[in-house]
Amino acid sequence: MEMPKLDVENTAGFCFACSQENPIGLKLKPVQYGEKVTAEFTAGKFHQGWDNVIHGGILYTLLDEVTAYAMLCHGIELGVTAKSEIRFKQVAPINEPIKASAWVTKLTKRLVETKGVLTLKDDTVIVDGNFLFYVWRQSKRTILWDMDGVIADSYFFHFAAWQETFAKRGIKFTKEAFNKLFGTRNDFIIGTIIGRELPERDVKIMVQEKEENFRRKATGNIKPFPGAIRLLNAIKKGNFKLGLVSSAPKDNIDLVLSELNLKGIFNCVVFGQEVSESKPSPQIYLLAAKKLEMTPNDCVVIEDSPLGVTAAKTAGMKCLAITNTHPRQKLDEADKIVDSLENVDLITLLIRVQKVARIRKKEI
Amino acid sequence: MEMPKLDVENTAGFCFACSQENPIGLKLKPVQYGEKVTAEFTAGKFHQGWDNVIHGGILYTLLDEVTAYAMLCHGIELGVTAKSEIRFKQVAPINEPIKASAWVTKLTKRLVETKGVLTLKDDTVIVDGNFLFYVWRQSKRTILWDMDGVIADSYFFHFAAWQETFAKRGIKFTKEAFNKLFGTRNDFIIGTIIGRELPERDVKIMVQEKEENFRRKATGNIKPFPGAIRLLNAIKKGNFKLGLVSSAPKDNIDLVLSELNLKGIFNCVVFGQEVSESKPSPQIYLLAAKKLEMTPNDCVVIEDSPLGVTAAKTAGMKCLAITNTHPRQKLDEADKIVDSLENVDLITLLIRVQKVARIRKKEI
Repeated sequence: MEMPKLDVENTAGFCFACSQENPIGLKLKPVQYGEKVTAEFTAGKFHQGWDNVIHGGILYTLLDEVTAYAMLCHGIELGVTAKSEIRFKQVAPINEPIKASAWVTKLTKRLVETKGVLTLKDDTVIVDGNFLFYVWRQSKRTILWDMDGVIADSYFFHFAAWQETFAKRGIKFTKEAFNKLFGTRNDFIIGTIIGRELPERDVKIMVQEKEENFRRKATGNIKPFPGAIRLLNAIKKGNFKLGLVSSAPKDNIDLVLSELNLKGIFNCVVFGQEVSESKPSPQIYLLAAKKLEMTPNDCVVIEDSPLGVTAAKTAGMKCLAITNTHPRQKLDEADKIVDSLENVDLITLLIRVQKVARIRKKEI
Repeated sequence: MEMPKLDVENTAGFCFACSQENPIGLKLKPVQYGEKVTAEFTAGKFHQGWDNVIHGGILYTLLDEVTAYAMLCHGIELGVTAKSEIRFKQVAPINEPIKASAWVTKLTKRLVETKGVLTLKDDTVIVDGNFLFYVWRQSKRTILWDMDGVIADSYFFHFAAWQETFAKRGIKFTKEAFNKLFGTRNDFIIGTIIGRELPERDVKIMVQEKEENFRRKATGNIKPFPGAIRLLNAIKKGNFKLGLVSSAPKDNIDLVLSELNLKGIFNCVVFGQEVSESKPSPQIYLLAAKKLEMTPNDCVVIEDSPLGVTAAKTAGMKCLAITNTHPRQKLDEADKIVDSLENVDLITLLIRVQKVARIRKKEI
């Protein structure tokens, strides 16, 4: 029984099954991995029915909970339980870890079918069940991704490209300076480094040179950050809206999407030239929300730069920050900070980023 | 939503649903009345799923628990849950009383089918469910009834009959004396009152006189104690063994059973003349257990007299005492004392009398 090692920090609210603050609750920490949502639970003496055996109601609670999360990971924010059919196969002992798993078996516009199973450490099935739900409310959750430093491990190629461009003009370009500016628009970087207004033509030539350098260096060499592709695919499968929001020029975006085989995965791509102000202005994120016909409140942004986090938060969005480029203390404006997307599943992205009462299925 | 006013004193063990000692449990107090087992529960904020709504797992626990008790009341000590099918009809709010009811719909040697339902105060159905169980173990519980003072309200007729018999011989017979002796055998009463050994022939004549007096007075006038007939019928329906164990002569027993329409309800009748020693000797109860092929440990005795309680406990049986004839403090050898059978249901008789971990269904 292997559990994926994902982030399972507190969810709020008082849910009997999954709240970490409910003093009598089961304190489940469900994680989504691939098709399944799983949670581990070891019952104690207070979860007994008859001596040393877990109460049937507790077993049902485990199934019910992972099922609700499995639906949530498929974009069903509220599912009305129509019926459940549970089969008990084996005695369920206390003081031994039980794994609860659930997955969606059928999804139409109106109905969701799920299957759940409880197993012992040796994979013996204790209970399995089928659930049928009516779709009550589709999730509107929209995930907006920054590209460089979040999806694409492009830092080195960008830094080297800038260094070459500035060096040709006798200007020293340090890693420290780049660290502050990575993720903002090219004209913003040039202006900040040069320290004075350049004629627009000169800026354009520098940008062109830098991006040619970048694309030459990056082509065939660019790699995704660990966990990014898995998470993108999970979101896509869950039927949530995906946006790519990058300060980079369109050519770079096309290159990266093509190199990483991500063409067509985003419902919308917004690039730097489409707005008049660079991050930390919220303009680019607000434009993405508008294009996707979503309110900022429905959007979760994934960012790696302090200026990007500021842009997202100023736009009124939730923000998950990754320490791919900047240390934790520089990103503390974000709602949640992680060291790698490897530790992030759909549940973290949909619920734990928000630190508010999770939205879950309604039993009516 | 009316709940029968039955005794619901502590059941032991740590059952999540029904133990009164489980600090995180639901502390249900199921009662059996007629065909149904019911329990009331008001969920608090720690039983929530999403805000203000009871978690589906808690709802299932309620159904599961009353179902287990309904089976128990039909003599199924251990039922293996094969499957359950639950339908959710209506939102289940916290802070409002929910009534859980369950009843057996089909019972064969190998299978039990039950139905359960959760309702609000206005009888709105929230959830209903069907359960299928395999019969794992039939209950061996056997209920042994004393007759006079327990089933039949015969005290007055016996007292008057003795008074008449003794008065004819110039002997004063007080209520105080009778109170101590009611429930023991006639020869024991005569010996105790006269204070010396009488010739067997004289005893026989006095007994004959007294019983003739009794039957004359009782015929057409004798009444059952409140609750006794209902409880007898519930036990019979539940397929438990029933024994009548009385110090009275056979003719009296036949008269009472006929007067109260109880002929044929007992699997076995043991009367005073069948044993050599009167209560408080355990002889008569041990003989009943032997006739029914049960161990004393499987037997629950219902008694009204201190000497009868002593007989039952000396026989190694459980004993429920009723204060129909004697005050509570005289009966404290019993496992449980009640003021009337009106407050006693099958659950009290099968479980609460024992004050030991209740036996319940096994989820395998």
